[in-house]
Amino acid sequence: MNLNLSQAAEFFRQNDNFTLLCHANPDGDTLGSGYALCGALHMLGKRAKVLCADKASTRFDYLKEALVPALTDVDESSGKIITVDVADLELLGDLKEQYTDIDLCVDHHVSNKFFAKATLLDTAAAACAELVWDLIKELMGGEVAQVGAEIRTAVYTGVSTDTGCFRFSNTTAKSHAIAAELMDFENMVKRVAQINYIMFEMKTLGRIELEQKAYSGIEYHFDNKCAVIVLTRDMLADIDTADTANVSVLPKQVEGVQVGILLKERDSSEDANKWKISVRTNMNIDAQEICSVLGGGGHVRAAGCKLKGSVEEVKTRVLAEVEKQL
Amino acid sequence: MNLNLSQAAEFFRQNDNFTLLCHANPDGDTLGSGYALCGALHMLGKRAKVLCADKASTRFDYLKEALVPALTDVDESSGKIITVDVADLELLGDLKEQYTDIDLCVDHHVSNKFFAKATLLDTAAAACAELVWDLIKELMGGEVAQVGAEIRTAVYTGVSTDTGCFRFSNTTAKSHAIAAELMDFENMVKRVAQINYIMFEMKTLGRIELEQKAYSGIEYHFDNKCAVIVLTRDMLADIDTADTANVSVLPKQVEGVQVGILLKERDSSEDANKWKISVRTNMNIDAQEICSVLGGGGHVRAAGCKLKGSVEEVKTRVLAEVEKQL
Repeated sequence: MNLNLSQAAEFFRQNDNFTLLCHANPDGDTLGSGYALCGALHMLGKRAKVLCADKASTRFDYLKEALVPALTDVDESSGKIITVDVADLELLGDLKEQYTDIDLCVDHHVSNKFFAKATLLDTAAAACAELVWDLIKELMGGEVAQVGAEIRTAVYTGVSTDTGCFRFSNTTAKSHAIAAELMDFENMVKRVAQINYIMFEMKTLGRIELEQKAYSGIEYHFDNKCAVIVLTRDMLADIDTADTANVSVLPKQVEGVQVGILLKERDSSEDANKWKISVRTNMNIDAQEICSVLGGGGHVRAAGCKLKGSVEEVKTRVLAEVEKQL
Repeated sequence: MNLNLSQAAEFFRQNDNFTLLCHANPDGDTLGSGYALCGALHMLGKRAKVLCADKASTRFDYLKEALVPALTDVDESSGKIITVDVADLELLGDLKEQYTDIDLCVDHHVSNKFFAKATLLDTAAAACAELVWDLIKELMGGEVAQVGAEIRTAVYTGVSTDTGCFRFSNTTAKSHAIAAELMDFENMVKRVAQINYIMFEMKTLGRIELEQKAYSGIEYHFDNKCAVIVLTRDMLADIDTADTANVSVLPKQVEGVQVGILLKERDSSEDANKWKISVRTNMNIDAQEICSVLGGGGHVRAAGCKLKGSVEEVKTRVLAEVEKQL
């Protein structure tokens, strides 16, 4: 069942205990959406907590400020299970064993699989956090002045990270209007500057090293319209996981490249020959079409899939799909 | 004399011929401000043109779309001279010989020298283009729906380039509110995506090479709180000038660095031992104080100056001022 904003708000009002599930390998949007919604539910006196299969990067530690710790003690037996920014149950990672019965899915992916009893979906939203902000405003009856800096910061984190700080082509007038609303509050200009510095400006020495490795081995195909970067486990051995965030945008950033492919070898030793493929596209090429054929999904400009095989086998399979789209 | 918005709008209404001067080494803000204002004056049936001492990068070619070519034929003898985004007459470059008598200065720099007969200054504006948008709205009597995509695109270019696409600490709620207003118009989402790709995502092979050179020679001082990158003429010999834009942010992007210094050797052979110094700072350090002591100026987080001497001499002088601020 598809819900609209007012129906979703009613669902939250009529219940008291909520477990909010983020997707595995959490990014700023799933975490920002989860913590913002959790904080707003606490404001309404509800009990709510945020769970994720994988540990979040320490860069996101500040998001927990949105929480009232006493209200994170949730009675799961009578509670409702919500997913945020999760298109498919599979993306819950290890949490999918325990949580198979989802009451409400809050999401913005066109590839959403409608796995929950009810779904609040806005595929026009650049970030799930945009939809969460709409939902928070609905829950507050439009009285957003009472929503504090911590929740605003969590929403901003989701919007800014999913739009590449308002740089990616998914950015809309609404993304900016929400940022303006969020920042029009005491201390938010300074908070936003700190987030932007951590997320988009600061580079660790490890990150600089990773980018130098990535660019030194870049390959071009189809008249330079497609660039491929391969990162093997060896190349990643001395690189911190946090330093690999958004590395998938590097191949597509090269002038003239329309499709950027990152092949990243998965990091546990049982995963030899298993690859995570990230496809990023510029104008007119559908990344999701490339990846859905290969068993993955995502957005028009950013999609992914997982494949098994030697690097050459995997590359050949992906390039065959790219060629069809060019 | 300081003008407010309504007085500045009155000045434009009462005159018919305008020459708009941008600063030398033009960036997106001076050009975006100039072309947006020029386009708006054409809408009012005025004659206006944009001049700059230096050729703009071809990346900015699209800005000229804002113009009605027939109305760029300006009678300078009876016309008014306006500067946009120019803090000091010196920054006009070669144009300063011909234009010494400025009627109106439209600017947002705290270091503004009040060199014009009248000044419209908003130091709270992240970009001069924010002030220009306020001025255009004033000129249109609030009827902004009639302002077309070309002028909106020029204003967006100024705001986005001066805020590093809403990433830098000068970004305010108003910067986002203006972006939302600009984008709420037919075809603007797509135009903005194209600008962001060209300005903030796309990297030429030359740019990638430049960054690899820059990072490979980076030096750290004062317990790694200050990073210095030196780019000599030799290092820049095979690099296109357009590829060096914003290279000044690289040293400050390294984790833990509070002050980033770029020493760039100036490019004509008469300029041997002449250096352009760019200072970029994170929280709590005033870049303008460092540069003003050395004869330069700018903003709190981004300032610059020019010095003569060997690289070691110049570096020592700059680091002595940095040390005072740390």
